[in-house]
Amino acid sequence: MAETALVVFTPSGKRGRFARGTSVLQAARVLGVDVDSVCGGRGLCGRCQITIGEGQFAKHAIRSTAEHTTATSEVEARYDRRVGLKPGRRLGCQAQLLGDLVVDVPPDSQVHKQVVRKRAEVRTIELDPVVRLHHVEVAEPELHAPAGDLQRLQNALRAQWHLDGLTCDLRSLQGLQRALRDGDWKATVAVHSGERIIGVWPGFHDRALGVAVDVGSTTVAAHLCDLASGQVLASAGVMNPQIRFGEDLMSRVSYVMMNPGGEVEMTRVVREAVGHLIDQVAAEARIDPKEILELTFVGNPIMHHLLLGIDPTELGGAPFALAVDEAITLWASELDLLGVHPNARVYVLPCIAGHVGADTAGVILSETPHLSDEITLVVDVGTNAEIVLGNRERLLVASSPTGPAFEGAQISCGQRAAPGAIERLRIDRATLEPRFKVIGCDLWSDDPEFDRATARSGVTGICGSGIIEALAEMYLAGILKSDGTIDGAKAAQSPRIQADGRTFSYLIREGHPEIRIQQNDVRAIQLAKAALYAGARLLMDHLGVDQVERITLAGAFGSHIDPKYAMVLGLIPDCDLAKVGSAGNAAGTGARIALLNRQARAEIERVVRRIEKIETATEPRFQEHFVGAMAIPHATTAYPHLAAAVDLPHPSTSPGAESDPRGRRRRRASG
Amino acid sequence: MAETALVVFTPSGKRGRFARGTSVLQAARVLGVDVDSVCGGRGLCGRCQITIGEGQFAKHAIRSTAEHTTATSEVEARYDRRVGLKPGRRLGCQAQLLGDLVVDVPPDSQVHKQVVRKRAEVRTIELDPVVRLHHVEVAEPELHAPAGDLQRLQNALRAQWHLDGLTCDLRSLQGLQRALRDGDWKATVAVHSGERIIGVWPGFHDRALGVAVDVGSTTVAAHLCDLASGQVLASAGVMNPQIRFGEDLMSRVSYVMMNPGGEVEMTRVVREAVGHLIDQVAAEARIDPKEILELTFVGNPIMHHLLLGIDPTELGGAPFALAVDEAITLWASELDLLGVHPNARVYVLPCIAGHVGADTAGVILSETPHLSDEITLVVDVGTNAEIVLGNRERLLVASSPTGPAFEGAQISCGQRAAPGAIERLRIDRATLEPRFKVIGCDLWSDDPEFDRATARSGVTGICGSGIIEALAEMYLAGILKSDGTIDGAKAAQSPRIQADGRTFSYLIREGHPEIRIQQNDVRAIQLAKAALYAGARLLMDHLGVDQVERITLAGAFGSHIDPKYAMVLGLIPDCDLAKVGSAGNAAGTGARIALLNRQARAEIERVVRRIEKIETATEPRFQEHFVGAMAIPHATTAYPHLAAAVDLPHPSTSPGAESDPRGRRRRRASG
Repeated sequence: MAETALVVFTPSGKRGRFARGTSVLQAARVLGVDVDSVCGGRGLCGRCQITIGEGQFAKHAIRSTAEHTTATSEVEARYDRRVGLKPGRRLGCQAQLLGDLVVDVPPDSQVHKQVVRKRAEVRTIELDPVVRLHHVEVAEPELHAPAGDLQRLQNALRAQWHLDGLTCDLRSLQGLQRALRDGDWKATVAVHSGERIIGVWPGFHDRALGVAVDVGSTTVAAHLCDLASGQVLASAGVMNPQIRFGEDLMSRVSYVMMNPGGEVEMTRVVREAVGHLIDQVAAEARIDPKEILELTFVGNPIMHHLLLGIDPTELGGAPFALAVDEAITLWASELDLLGVHPNARVYVLPCIAGHVGADTAGVILSETPHLSDEITLVVDVGTNAEIVLGNRERLLVASSPTGPAFEGAQISCGQRAAPGAIERLRIDRATLEPRFKVIGCDLWSDDPEFDRATARSGVTGICGSGIIEALAEMYLAGILKSDGTIDGAKAAQSPRIQADGRTFSYLIREGHPEIRIQQNDVRAIQLAKAALYAGARLLMDHLGVDQVERITLAGAFGSHIDPKYAMVLGLIPDCDLAKVGSAGNAAGTGARIALLNRQARAEIERVVRRIEKIETATEPRFQEHFVGAMAIPHATTAYPHLAAAVDLPHPSTSPGAESDPRGRRRRRASG
Repeated sequence: MAETALVVFTPSGKRGRFARGTSVLQAARVLGVDVDSVCGGRGLCGRCQITIGEGQFAKHAIRSTAEHTTATSEVEARYDRRVGLKPGRRLGCQAQLLGDLVVDVPPDSQVHKQVVRKRAEVRTIELDPVVRLHHVEVAEPELHAPAGDLQRLQNALRAQWHLDGLTCDLRSLQGLQRALRDGDWKATVAVHSGERIIGVWPGFHDRALGVAVDVGSTTVAAHLCDLASGQVLASAGVMNPQIRFGEDLMSRVSYVMMNPGGEVEMTRVVREAVGHLIDQVAAEARIDPKEILELTFVGNPIMHHLLLGIDPTELGGAPFALAVDEAITLWASELDLLGVHPNARVYVLPCIAGHVGADTAGVILSETPHLSDEITLVVDVGTNAEIVLGNRERLLVASSPTGPAFEGAQISCGQRAAPGAIERLRIDRATLEPRFKVIGCDLWSDDPEFDRATARSGVTGICGSGIIEALAEMYLAGILKSDGTIDGAKAAQSPRIQADGRTFSYLIREGHPEIRIQQNDVRAIQLAKAALYAGARLLMDHLGVDQVERITLAGAFGSHIDPKYAMVLGLIPDCDLAKVGSAGNAAGTGARIALLNRQARAEIERVVRRIEKIETATEPRFQEHFVGAMAIPHATTAYPHLAAAVDLPHPSTSPGAESDPRGRRRRRASG
């Protein structure tokens, strides 16, 4: 038998000759094949599982059979009994070369494995966490070689993992003696950034967890992730307890202005809420929160500052100066998060501008407009709308003051998205009768089972996405005129159009509560949608384009509205409807990406530095676009893609721009 | 008049031509002349004071007069009124070039000024603190340039001080907005290691303080220093409160072994003591302890571990494994030192081996054997003796178990060095009558005023250095035989030699308390001095030398003993008496050097890595030397330098080696 054996790894195709008796894992390391290992080849972690190819591989000019490796070792058998090996799998650290072999490395055995995301159009997350576990055998102390425990641990990490120049947190140092001796000079070490020891466990320890946190003004959400697999183990959300100091952002800043020191209290309650959330996800996943080694945070600038204990007052008025816009790394204990591992680190994504925070950085990381060839518009709608426009060449960002109408606030029958809220609505073009669906029930309201199915929740109001559909359908049915007035002339055609003082309203549902769209509701949405559109349009001007090629709607509101109706109302510019999609909680996803991939941190920090920030408040053109965008459809913009997809009202029934003399006057004045 | 002017700086001799109107400070910076400045040329700090040379300077081929600079500016006049300029001094940032000039930079205007040390033979401390203050003018935020406060501060530090890539402590970030706005966009920043912002003050702030702390098993001492001048502003010491858990080191380790968790309590009390000391030196210097930005610590391994909150149990038995031997940098708050600046940093000097701690690292930094051409022996005597031997080529270190006899413990009339303790003693060679001096009084005991002068303290005992002199004088007077027995035959010659059971004692003073040297006292000192000598001798063997060229005695005991007597008794090897000196609290001086000079930290970390550690406990030769060193003088060593300086007893009355058959037997057995 030959003294050396040829081994070919698939799918990489890397190949090389090794002495008989070399383990598959050793061969993979020498060749730079991506095979995971925490235990360093001791058969403990099971990360290095591989499959042996059987047969003649013409492509590789090699004949490979299972007999060309050593038989299943006692260590492997023990791992199989304890944890279980999939059929046909071997442990790469145990299987040794006896002859030529083709070795397949399945995706789940790769260090840089990819984390599956639900939506196909966005990139997958490549796993490359900042915190890595390394099992080591440490030399025992000797009288004649008086190196300290830490030095011997560092030597072991250098020799066994090629990690050099590591420093160590004091708290890890305080537990180091015990860990090394309890583990009989075997230990597992958590290393942050390849630079610093932040945890030491006796013996073999194979669990490193992280939490991605999205601190919203309304809700705080946390996702507990396994840093080794990228898997989300549990998610939870709670109301942001700061709400008792003010419903929206500006009222919280006002609270601080009126109550000096109030920011301290708001910082305390939001940190407590995060702490409770962590306990909750840990309990749900049945893990010890002390195994959480890393946390990432996103949030708008005011949430960001309050989380960090920085007074947000400066963000309440021009020039909206952030205390810090860079990404920040610190100890979780500095944010009073004491339930997690004592040395757990926090990474806070960078802010972009005074109105555009780390949440938008998260959205960009998730939706990757900076990697796109197409001109991409990403809109994250909350109380403000954050608008990102561009492609791999240039990226622009602005914040537009939409107000809370899209969230159902300032709407007479509006409510937050919750069971019982109308979220879909259609109007019969002939009878003008509505039918609708509510959150929590799949039936339309004209289904005979509807009342029974919604008995528990009732029909309580109309949420943001419901408002959009209601207004768009009212416009398409001719109830709403292009200038936004509810057409009193239609009262003759349907009893649902009713006089309401000097204006008219549209009755959706009688009873308790009665649900109707009033003229003021239309006005509130007109203001919000004009602000949103004007922001996007301003960025298009700056970028020098008249058309966007892709639109992504992020955030809860963006996830629920129908892009078609958003376009009918003119919230967003015209675009091929097939290329308009929603991204869900993209900010939270961005936090998760930053948690699982350290390169993503460098990436977003780079992107944020080159992003162009456009201030809407002082741009005369924003005012212009705003006024022009009040009408339905817009006075100034064509929607060819929309017109091809939707049966829009005939020009004669919607005189468009001509019906908005006020807007046109203003435009002239400001132009 | 010429458009440019020639300027020559003394003492550096650097020269260059500059446009008229250039300030002297600017010219110095361009030429790389070492001129200090905190305020960056704003006439606030007064650090850049210079003197204008007047007359024809043939050497430099230049005629310089005061008229070749601008007249005293309003800024200078204000500084003079507020702080005062020395006669003939100008502020370099204000004086502008009008013609050729010779400019002298006095030592106190240099950044790397030297700190004067009292002893001439050691190197001066070059000032180069880790924490530096920088005054900056920061751009105000603008709506169209949404860089955060930190980013604009970083930009200012880059532009005005060439400091790039600085990060910032969260606690500084939290106060940043206030500081910048309160100072009207002028601020002073403390930068640590040229890397991280640790403090921000509104406007001009010119005070950065540091504390060097020596944590001894008996006393904890602190020196408050001005980081800009290197000056010691105040010093204080307290008893180490751990004494209530055990008088010496090993009894404290035993306490932890007997009382699991006892280390937590010992950590708490020593940190509290350091906190109180800091308050004390701050109060004495009338400064706010929040201005303390940097602390350095030395201490033996057990003190080091307890300060850091690391269980010292491992140091109580072989193999005496340190948890960490490297230098450590952390926040003062991690050591519960909350009175100082919230971001103050701590630097703990490296340990060398299980018995040789950061205190010895401090001694080396202070006494610089590693820079010496001469073979230098440094001995720091406490409960253990730390012994360092070598020169710039090689450095060896060992710890020798001398026991506490040198500190006056285990001696019947022994006591700590305190007023009333005998520290000097002479014996009349003919009458065998003693005369002595006590601590706190300059008179000898045969002075008629002595009793009155010591009425308050009394004569209470004999301290470590007193014991050495007493025994050496007893030997020189023939009372003590070479094998260490008090010669009963002398009882006939003097009533002071008295039978004491089966042995004899020497009466120093009658009354209360009666002070006498008993046979057991001699034995205790013999054991201690033999251990000390054997350690030094062992290192000499390893280094391959028979003679040392310089001896430095460090520590309180080392400062008070007379080298001649130390040599008569054989504590230390033979050496030219002119080259034997004492260093005082060299460990504390080392802490002060590390406080004032960041290069010194890199230096001691480098030295400690290459130092050779010799373990006395397991070296057969140590045992050999120990036995041979019991006699007075040694059985095995010649003292030619000593013999030339001191009238030693005639060989016939001190048969030397031959009188110690027990030692010789043992040597044969172990050899």
